[in-house]
Amino acid sequence: MATAGDTARFSTDVYAHRLREAAAGAAAAGLAGLIITPGYDLRYLVGSRAQTFERLTALVLPADGSAPTVVVPRLELAALRESAVPELGVTVRDWVDGEDPYALVAAAIGGPGTRSPATAVTDSMPALHLLPLADVLGTVPVLATDVLRRLRMIKDPAEVDALRKAGAAIDRVHARVPEFLVPGRTEADVAADIAEAIVAEGHSEVAFIIVGSGPNGADPHHECSDRTLAAGDIVVVDIGGPYAPGYNSDSTRTYSLGEPDAEVARRYAVLQRAQADAVAAVRPGVSAESVDAAARDVLAAAGLAEAFVHRTGHGIGLSVHEEPYIVAGNDIMLEPGMAFSVEPGIYFAGQWGARIEDIVIVTEDGAESVNNRPHDLVVVPV
Amino acid sequence: MATAGDTARFSTDVYAHRLREAAAGAAAAGLAGLIITPGYDLRYLVGSRAQTFERLTALVLPADGSAPTVVVPRLELAALRESAVPELGVTVRDWVDGEDPYALVAAAIGGPGTRSPATAVTDSMPALHLLPLADVLGTVPVLATDVLRRLRMIKDPAEVDALRKAGAAIDRVHARVPEFLVPGRTEADVAADIAEAIVAEGHSEVAFIIVGSGPNGADPHHECSDRTLAAGDIVVVDIGGPYAPGYNSDSTRTYSLGEPDAEVARRYAVLQRAQADAVAAVRPGVSAESVDAAARDVLAAAGLAEAFVHRTGHGIGLSVHEEPYIVAGNDIMLEPGMAFSVEPGIYFAGQWGARIEDIVIVTEDGAESVNNRPHDLVVVPV
Repeated sequence: MATAGDTARFSTDVYAHRLREAAAGAAAAGLAGLIITPGYDLRYLVGSRAQTFERLTALVLPADGSAPTVVVPRLELAALRESAVPELGVTVRDWVDGEDPYALVAAAIGGPGTRSPATAVTDSMPALHLLPLADVLGTVPVLATDVLRRLRMIKDPAEVDALRKAGAAIDRVHARVPEFLVPGRTEADVAADIAEAIVAEGHSEVAFIIVGSGPNGADPHHECSDRTLAAGDIVVVDIGGPYAPGYNSDSTRTYSLGEPDAEVARRYAVLQRAQADAVAAVRPGVSAESVDAAARDVLAAAGLAEAFVHRTGHGIGLSVHEEPYIVAGNDIMLEPGMAFSVEPGIYFAGQWGARIEDIVIVTEDGAESVNNRPHDLVVVPV
Repeated sequence: MATAGDTARFSTDVYAHRLREAAAGAAAAGLAGLIITPGYDLRYLVGSRAQTFERLTALVLPADGSAPTVVVPRLELAALRESAVPELGVTVRDWVDGEDPYALVAAAIGGPGTRSPATAVTDSMPALHLLPLADVLGTVPVLATDVLRRLRMIKDPAEVDALRKAGAAIDRVHARVPEFLVPGRTEADVAADIAEAIVAEGHSEVAFIIVGSGPNGADPHHECSDRTLAAGDIVVVDIGGPYAPGYNSDSTRTYSLGEPDAEVARRYAVLQRAQADAVAAVRPGVSAESVDAAARDVLAAAGLAEAFVHRTGHGIGLSVHEEPYIVAGNDIMLEPGMAFSVEPGIYFAGQWGARIEDIVIVTEDGAESVNNRPHDLVVVPV
């Protein structure tokens, strides 16, 4: 069921460059190399969407600049053809049931007992593979996150372009949401319409749909339910999906079925200011946590600190949630090309919630938002 | 977008029993306890479909019989309500961004420095959590697979019933496949019809659809493509999905668009015998590998050993692929209640392939197949 959007990737040069940068990063970190099982890191490095679980597939990237190896079950060889692997000069070492793939990985990284320097593994490597690999290597690997973080966080122009297209597509969906929000329909009815619109507006698939009406809006991670919409509801709509070649949209707007009461309007206005101030705080050289603080300070000053129960944002790219996280304690300095959500929210248990979310990209002197729908509480006539 | 099928679970008693058995198994294995992050093990133990990745959610199950703890991001508390957790007497320890969830897990398992006895982790725990957990615990955990294997492999009557319903549902889909297989249509067209039928026949969603026509049938893991079906094609159709409360179907039949030529028919007949002999070999007390050998021997005797490039089968339940694996080298003894696929195949690169797959459940004296469509090459008139 692969579609064009599912198999699209960048040109081979892009991946060759990333592999060189990742190997150089591993060398700079004093590592023997990287071991990357299926997941976003593998997709980032070689354009492969492999999803094997119990049979090991792994990219082994030595830090010394020698050719990478892909260890892959023979059964999965065909799937590799859609990735950049065949054009990258990578050694492909296939294996069949009964062989020990961990020994193949160890050999490709420089042999068993590679105690020092250490190897680093992708953050999604499951224990199923990590523990036997640690046994064969004779040492516990470390996370490759530090080496890959900067590479994956700083989007190149092709990635920025992909994020812009995804953002424009989800904006088109939000433009259509008011017509779906009709009292008497259920959240699930609305979500079904949104799902169709997400694909119709160019996404390759739906990643997530939150339709949180009334009290359900007070749960930031509510998805949708059979609750029937009613006049007077405040409705949080948080939606997104991947857009070819796989970069995600993610945008939230909050809707009011009929005019909101004065207290809702007052609190929403504070939220709107918090979101705007946080976006205004984004520029190279400021910390991720300072952007979180910018939103939090506005809400706290209005007595709404307790209503904001989550971090301000998360990085986005091939993955909907990745670094940099915009959260207290994260002192990473923003750099041009970083892309993340700015999405403060306020939640009142049993009553209602609201959230405003744009994806922004750090520019040379500020931030570019890839989402450009109005930030006001969207009043849907009922 | 939760549907009834997505949130259905067994009664709380079922999970209470499983937790007791798992704790007892951990004690018997000399472990301090189990640490289970989201995935099939968590779903098996407490009925939770949590899918958190970067924020740690973990069930901590001490081996000493004391109350389990669920460590969960505050944001995800609401999602836990759909699981059996609120009714199980489990301690819920929520955490917010900025807290150290690994320290909470270590405390729940008996404190940091729990060097001996070891703790065991679910096989899907990502390195992102496993490595910091190993740091806090002061030791590298082991896989919980050995403790949970027997529990998860031996299906209880409710699980067997769920597998039977899933099997009957996918049989109804296969009964409709011939009408979809029309020369001039693409594999993707056929897959779209099958997807609709899988849901229409009662599955909560589609897990996978392979439509491998002509040379594409020679790739066991081909999904589907824009290849147009033509008279004379042999078409492998391997399909399945979860059926409430989440147990999977998985069945393959092979179709011929028009009468097959004599050589295809001859080879298919060997495959059919191989599959039948493998099913006939299933009974308590024989090894998993002996079932694999039963299929392989038939093919080898007919000179088709090289054409059978994968294992004979895999266990099935909440996960499409789980233990027991029916493969050379697996000397596990079959027991009543085990459920797995028997799916030999033959593959001729660039030409065609065929596979026959049923899910069988080990009974007291043999095997019950939950799939009951005819095993012959299905000739579709063209």
